[in-house]
Amino acid sequence: MNTTPLTLDEIYNLAHDCLTQNGADQANADALSNTIMTAERDGSHSHGLFRLPAYVASLRSGKVKGNAAPKAEQVTPALVRVHGDNGYAPIAHEVGIPLLAEAAKNLGVGVLAISHVHHMAALWPEVEALAEHNLVGLACTPYMPAVAPAGATKPLFGTNPLSFAWPRPGKSPVVFDMATASMAMGEVQIAAREGHDVPMGTGLDKNGAMTTNPNEIADGGVLLPFGGYKGSAIAMMVELLAAGLVGENFSFEAKEGDNGDGGPPQGGQFILAMSPAMIATDNWDDHCEGFFNKLTGLDGVRLPGERRHKNRLSDAPRQINTPLVEKIRSLMD
Amino acid sequence: MNTTPLTLDEIYNLAHDCLTQNGADQANADALSNTIMTAERDGSHSHGLFRLPAYVASLRSGKVKGNAAPKAEQVTPALVRVHGDNGYAPIAHEVGIPLLAEAAKNLGVGVLAISHVHHMAALWPEVEALAEHNLVGLACTPYMPAVAPAGATKPLFGTNPLSFAWPRPGKSPVVFDMATASMAMGEVQIAAREGHDVPMGTGLDKNGAMTTNPNEIADGGVLLPFGGYKGSAIAMMVELLAAGLVGENFSFEAKEGDNGDGGPPQGGQFILAMSPAMIATDNWDDHCEGFFNKLTGLDGVRLPGERRHKNRLSDAPRQINTPLVEKIRSLMD
Repeated sequence: MNTTPLTLDEIYNLAHDCLTQNGADQANADALSNTIMTAERDGSHSHGLFRLPAYVASLRSGKVKGNAAPKAEQVTPALVRVHGDNGYAPIAHEVGIPLLAEAAKNLGVGVLAISHVHHMAALWPEVEALAEHNLVGLACTPYMPAVAPAGATKPLFGTNPLSFAWPRPGKSPVVFDMATASMAMGEVQIAAREGHDVPMGTGLDKNGAMTTNPNEIADGGVLLPFGGYKGSAIAMMVELLAAGLVGENFSFEAKEGDNGDGGPPQGGQFILAMSPAMIATDNWDDHCEGFFNKLTGLDGVRLPGERRHKNRLSDAPRQINTPLVEKIRSLMD
Repeated sequence: MNTTPLTLDEIYNLAHDCLTQNGADQANADALSNTIMTAERDGSHSHGLFRLPAYVASLRSGKVKGNAAPKAEQVTPALVRVHGDNGYAPIAHEVGIPLLAEAAKNLGVGVLAISHVHHMAALWPEVEALAEHNLVGLACTPYMPAVAPAGATKPLFGTNPLSFAWPRPGKSPVVFDMATASMAMGEVQIAAREGHDVPMGTGLDKNGAMTTNPNEIADGGVLLPFGGYKGSAIAMMVELLAAGLVGENFSFEAKEGDNGDGGPPQGGQFILAMSPAMIATDNWDDHCEGFFNKLTGLDGVRLPGERRHKNRLSDAPRQINTPLVEKIRSLMD
């Protein structure tokens, strides 16, 4: 593959220059460039520079504000609401996460309800930020209809990611961040191109029949939730928490209101934080290390997030797809 | 099948008589008989009278206290801890759920951390009780090691059920209550008896290989989580919330401490409650009905909990397995 080595600083600066030249102010460009850089740092290429052209498209179309100034409201000591001012999600997190962490430390539990944001990044940064405060974090957001509920043949749910972080003082947290879709449509397209079957349950063909042929899913078919009707229930829960409970767009509403510029639609996000130090006994940390030791002692098991945290340790340049770098440069005057 | 028709009152009284004759006091027998009766009422036979012999076994062995008097502690305005006094879970819910509901109504969110209980019932009663207060409920509990984490071939996770209820004022809530195991070992045994294959991913044979032959899973093999590595992450989250966060036994610890009498081990339970009226806008209810209309408008989709709530409407006698009724009667002098 044709790649260009870029240091983490170069990745950050490339994103920052591109964003500011396309209408983002310093604060918004800082937050979003950091999100992009940390994704590349951790090896999450699909959430790194790859997303930048879509971010730029929505700045240019005016759908997303490059000078968003999110505002927080402390509704109760345990509940924080953030209005994202129709910017990208990371700057709303900068406003809301510290207040959420404070709430959870004081009361044992807190909720952050974010509205009027556009979220197209990974969901681990916000829960890892909570884990750095020795808090448990759980976050989810809907997207646009792409997944058929179990039993149905038409899309209604978004890919609806759900992330969770468990703090381990002095160590990297245990973190998962997963789409509740069986896989991304992009992965289905890659399987089609490479001639691999996908597992039964990944999706339906255009007639609504189960298929392992990725071409039949990509060509007018639909994705399914992971794990059959149980995963479908989790995908539904994400809609209810991040849209119903937050008072923002369900996936189907997000699509109805979107201008189709390729960037993320307006939506909300639900983030929960809890304090093991306050809820469990004093010894919570050692107690959980016993569990993690049992888990990692099993052959074949890797803790969720482990690979990403290992990638993070390297300060070597990252190999970035060269046509992508050229495309990003073409977005700057 | 050989069945005996019993009215809901007769089911309640049969359970109550059997429990009081085996060491339960009035309050404990009331709570547990109600749990058993409501399971039969809703058609959840596997959580109804079927569990009574195991409940009795643990009362007789002394593992579970029939005169448990759970005590609540209001740790913060948003956090309630209940010490179950080593009784069955339903009487701890009677103490804790009203305090949790009050916390969530006042602050938008509340956590109930229950320790020192023995839980072998369904998990929908506690979240439906929250939905009756127009609150969102989420609950989970570990059990005993029965499920191999994704990638492993040895059990570590319990069947680790997770339940969720979404309130619909004036209507039945939307409720799911599911094991994070692919299926119960009892269901695997039924498939073996009836000569059906089980889906790939249900479990492993005794050599750790994937199999669709239920005999190979039941005969020294192991169950897997639902939905592959994503479901495995959810099963891990249940261990962390209901054991790590509550400060109680992980599934593997529960087994180590259990006397093997066939009843449920000592463990904890995590219950979260949130108020849509406080977190979302005023119009939360209508907004969510729009989503449910879209969902039920898709061919092939049924809302989780719908079948149970339909069963509930009938006041006809329930058909109870006659050998089970005889076995229960034999447990009384």
